[in-house]
Amino acid sequence: MQGQNNVSRRSFIGGLATALTWAGAYPNLTFPAQNRSQRGPDDYDRMAKLSFNENPYGPSNVVMKAMTDAFKYSNRYGYPDGGITEAIAKHHGVKPDNVLLGAGSGEILKVADDAFLIDHKKVVGVDPTFQTVYQFAVNSRAEAIKIPLLKDYRMDIPGIIKSVKNNYRDVGFVYVVNPNNPTGNIIPKQEIQLLLDSIPGDVPVLIDEAYHHFVDDPNYATSVPYVIEGRQVIVTRTFSKIAALAGMRLGYGLAPKELIARMRPFANGSINAIVKWGGVAALNDTATQDWTKKTTLALRKKVTDQLTGLGYSVIPSEANFFMAHVRRDVTPIIAEFEKKGVLVGRKFPPMVEHLRVSIGTAEEMDRFMTAFKEIFKQT
Amino acid sequence: MQGQNNVSRRSFIGGLATALTWAGAYPNLTFPAQNRSQRGPDDYDRMAKLSFNENPYGPSNVVMKAMTDAFKYSNRYGYPDGGITEAIAKHHGVKPDNVLLGAGSGEILKVADDAFLIDHKKVVGVDPTFQTVYQFAVNSRAEAIKIPLLKDYRMDIPGIIKSVKNNYRDVGFVYVVNPNNPTGNIIPKQEIQLLLDSIPGDVPVLIDEAYHHFVDDPNYATSVPYVIEGRQVIVTRTFSKIAALAGMRLGYGLAPKELIARMRPFANGSINAIVKWGGVAALNDTATQDWTKKTTLALRKKVTDQLTGLGYSVIPSEANFFMAHVRRDVTPIIAEFEKKGVLVGRKFPPMVEHLRVSIGTAEEMDRFMTAFKEIFKQT
Repeated sequence: MQGQNNVSRRSFIGGLATALTWAGAYPNLTFPAQNRSQRGPDDYDRMAKLSFNENPYGPSNVVMKAMTDAFKYSNRYGYPDGGITEAIAKHHGVKPDNVLLGAGSGEILKVADDAFLIDHKKVVGVDPTFQTVYQFAVNSRAEAIKIPLLKDYRMDIPGIIKSVKNNYRDVGFVYVVNPNNPTGNIIPKQEIQLLLDSIPGDVPVLIDEAYHHFVDDPNYATSVPYVIEGRQVIVTRTFSKIAALAGMRLGYGLAPKELIARMRPFANGSINAIVKWGGVAALNDTATQDWTKKTTLALRKKVTDQLTGLGYSVIPSEANFFMAHVRRDVTPIIAEFEKKGVLVGRKFPPMVEHLRVSIGTAEEMDRFMTAFKEIFKQT
Repeated sequence: MQGQNNVSRRSFIGGLATALTWAGAYPNLTFPAQNRSQRGPDDYDRMAKLSFNENPYGPSNVVMKAMTDAFKYSNRYGYPDGGITEAIAKHHGVKPDNVLLGAGSGEILKVADDAFLIDHKKVVGVDPTFQTVYQFAVNSRAEAIKIPLLKDYRMDIPGIIKSVKNNYRDVGFVYVVNPNNPTGNIIPKQEIQLLLDSIPGDVPVLIDEAYHHFVDDPNYATSVPYVIEGRQVIVTRTFSKIAALAGMRLGYGLAPKELIARMRPFANGSINAIVKWGGVAALNDTATQDWTKKTTLALRKKVTDQLTGLGYSVIPSEANFFMAHVRRDVTPIIAEFEKKGVLVGRKFPPMVEHLRVSIGTAEEMDRFMTAFKEIFKQT
């Protein structure tokens, strides 16, 4: 497994989009060992995997059945796909021409770069956040204008507005993640409204709602209504998180049809056949989603309460992960956790003393807390 | 299923890359009905599917087992992947940094456009051929210089050489498909050598070997040795054809590591988890590949012999499809076949009187011949 790295969405490492597919070509990257699939299946299986914001429960039985039944299309191109585009459209109250499927929502992010940053335009967003948009931008010799988080780790929406206005002629689009990754906090709905009302109306705003399903805060709202309203908004969603289909690769963008028409020519159209059927089943399987949300949030509360009880501050999270301020550089901490069989998130500069921890199963979170107490007692 | 179209590789329709993912947004496209997945599963199942150059037999048992065993990674990102990159490298006698995985080889074609046509450069190739490279080029406001096939449908390699020389400053890369699609004929190895020796040495040549495994002609040779030699050659291969994994989406490019390093930043890294394991199993399953090749070629010979016996000329094919000259416009012919439950290939202008027929099962080819005789007797 030398040098192989299968990391894709929500698991972006270091400063290169190239890290997505193969780390070995870039030996100068500081890859935390746990972010590589160098370990064999047995070694991998025994670890508590809290590093990639994955859903630890796997696809539900109805989703698995839909996927296995669809294996008969595994040799085909022009197969019936279960009506996945129509199912997504219906789910959101939009039309099929408001929907663009991607091999994960990560593909939609690249497609947005391809469509809106042509001729070296600029994307504006916060930092740190999910890096794919910025990396593909840089790789195609466009530019990313990154507005630092505020001191309390909230996203600086007025800062984005100001930057868009200052760079208006060159801005291709705005990118925000809500809730944000790696911090887990939200942009309040009033600030989304402020953003959209304050920048020139022809600047597309991509709002990445990968973690939408884990939010409870009434100050949050999805931005799908802005799409329906016809604002220049693209909302991305993924089946990777709530539906536990990260490895299967399915996501989508919702936008006014003119924006979809600008993006569609850059989509690969290269989505796995069986996950399309899995996606349709997942949309209907609200019981599993409810259970997953409830279980994840209960575990998040339990663990973050324990950490704050121990005197560590935690950024308020509305996602299936959280960030704790451990008051020292996380690089050796991450290695300590790995020795104890617990994989935690990479370092997210400049937040070098914050540890990102995904919410795994109850047993995995117990292993995390046990390891945490050992590591922070002995050092 | 309104307007939904899942067609991707080897099934490109009309003049828009956008057709790849969703036809409904482009109602002005002349979509042959059989190229759409509007039909429900039952209707789809009953058709003889000879339109997309698919492998009708589906993945072998060992490949299916490898994929189903890998379902445990369906919720993961950084999972063990069976060593697919290393397995491909070993299979070809190259190093892992000579390999770029794609969600089908179609992704590698887009990546080549992204990498080599930046700032509106030009790609040179023949026409008709597989359209993905040209379409993504046009979509990103680059340009495709298309050299018509020769009168006998051979690819005009001297014409490509001349065009590259005439446009040298603007040419990003050369694209050829060997064997070609839709014609099925090969570029003889001497002509590949001529091409590489005649154009400036810094112009990458992408040689798409999607149908490599079906070739018997000793005048053909894979271009992988040129990669090993360090020439500016990218060879693409796919698991869609010989391994019957079209719907699962796995392919790759092989190239000198500098070329891979130029392309890798544009890859999505968004490949389905389970097909990676399926790909490893497929590489090892040479018995099934041998059987598939033997069976496909025997059926191709049988059917093309029957057609030539009826007085119709067939372009010499080395692929799992062939083109027959039916001496009238194929649009109504395609519709006639569909009425009889047989899906055949779309029209490939300017070859409007040539019908492309994929090699299905023996039973499907019997249905094709029965329909053919009926259609060409009665009209």
